[in-house]
Amino acid sequence: MERKFERELKGLRERLLGMGGLAERMIRSAVAGLVSRDEGLVEMVIAHEEEMDRLCIEIDDRCFTLLALRQPMASDLRFLVAGIKINSDLERIGDQALSIALRVRRLLRGPRVEPPEDIPRMSGLAEAMVHRSLEAFLRGDAELARAVIEADDEVDALRDQVFRGLLSRMSADAGAIPAALDLILVSRNLERIADHATNIAEDVIYIVRGEDVRERGEKEARQGLRAPQAGPPR
Amino acid sequence: MERKFERELKGLRERLLGMGGLAERMIRSAVAGLVSRDEGLVEMVIAHEEEMDRLCIEIDDRCFTLLALRQPMASDLRFLVAGIKINSDLERIGDQALSIALRVRRLLRGPRVEPPEDIPRMSGLAEAMVHRSLEAFLRGDAELARAVIEADDEVDALRDQVFRGLLSRMSADAGAIPAALDLILVSRNLERIADHATNIAEDVIYIVRGEDVRERGEKEARQGLRAPQAGPPR
Repeated sequence: MERKFERELKGLRERLLGMGGLAERMIRSAVAGLVSRDEGLVEMVIAHEEEMDRLCIEIDDRCFTLLALRQPMASDLRFLVAGIKINSDLERIGDQALSIALRVRRLLRGPRVEPPEDIPRMSGLAEAMVHRSLEAFLRGDAELARAVIEADDEVDALRDQVFRGLLSRMSADAGAIPAALDLILVSRNLERIADHATNIAEDVIYIVRGEDVRERGEKEARQGLRAPQAGPPR
Repeated sequence: MERKFERELKGLRERLLGMGGLAERMIRSAVAGLVSRDEGLVEMVIAHEEEMDRLCIEIDDRCFTLLALRQPMASDLRFLVAGIKINSDLERIGDQALSIALRVRRLLRGPRVEPPEDIPRMSGLAEAMVHRSLEAFLRGDAELARAVIEADDEVDALRDQVFRGLLSRMSADAGAIPAALDLILVSRNLERIADHATNIAEDVIYIVRGEDVRERGEKEARQGLRAPQAGPPR
């Protein structure tokens, strides 16, 4: 039974990694499509949406079934609840990548525009944040999670830079307004992706801290000080 | 024990309602501040953020503690897991209302602008969606949840109308660009609030459907057909 539960948890981890990898590819391809004016890349992102939805439902089902049938305690419970939350963040990251792809498709069909260099820069940062937040989750690494949260400020600074640049482009040339608006909204999508990665990182810190406290509680219990606490610490 | 668990679930429901009510007031005040040019309303929204964060942590803790200590089965488990997800949607709705308040504060300090009438209209719809999604959750009312999901299209249509109106305002007058951009972003915040309400409504349908299937499972089990299924159906 115990072995089987461990296998099930392992399967869940692998699926979450798979979903994260898919989300990263979607972000990368959507922005690469913008920079290299390659509509094929954009269509690939759009085609990935179904797979994303399928994976999301499958992970939700697995988490819920394990919660219901295995009645896990403390750290496994915490892992499964975090899995449900992280799954929903990954799905929304996919939604944002899809939204970028749809804007890029519209941009590529209009007159040629140069996207600000900060957009692929934001995209690289956001993609790395998604990757590292999931790595932090799977390794239970609070340090790495904290690094993800710090990187969010950098993304926000780039977003402001993109905004100012495009604002002056619009002010100088009314004809540039529609495309500039789409580019601003692409930068907002990237900002939201970084926010979701930050949410995941915050969940990781919550789990790891919870385990610290739980361990302390068990230690004190062993010393006869008090009963172990299963409740969350914050 | 059973009585105590029921009291705890009741306390949780009340807190979720309280959080929903706070989120609704934040949306309403932020947009009323814009329409009536009342910075006091805007400051009230900003001051509410801390209460929102406190409530969110408290609800998360309660859900988690109940999951850990009570090891609930089927419908209670489903309620608690949904509670965790809905809590995080409500928190993000509060974040969006805060973001509107900060934009409105900037707008009120600049030259006078008329916000498009569709913005308070969007706000009223979004607020009602939040209210009804939470009502659907607490009553387990899938019909009401479906109505919330349908209302989302209306919000999206208004968002497009706001966008087109402000785009032509910008094209006609470069001086209007900064304020028009802020108004576009306010409409995007409202759109995201409606999206979160839609997420809540989708969770409600998931719960209700799950319970239907669970009941069927138990019925079949009583008839000796198969073991009851606790896993989710979708």
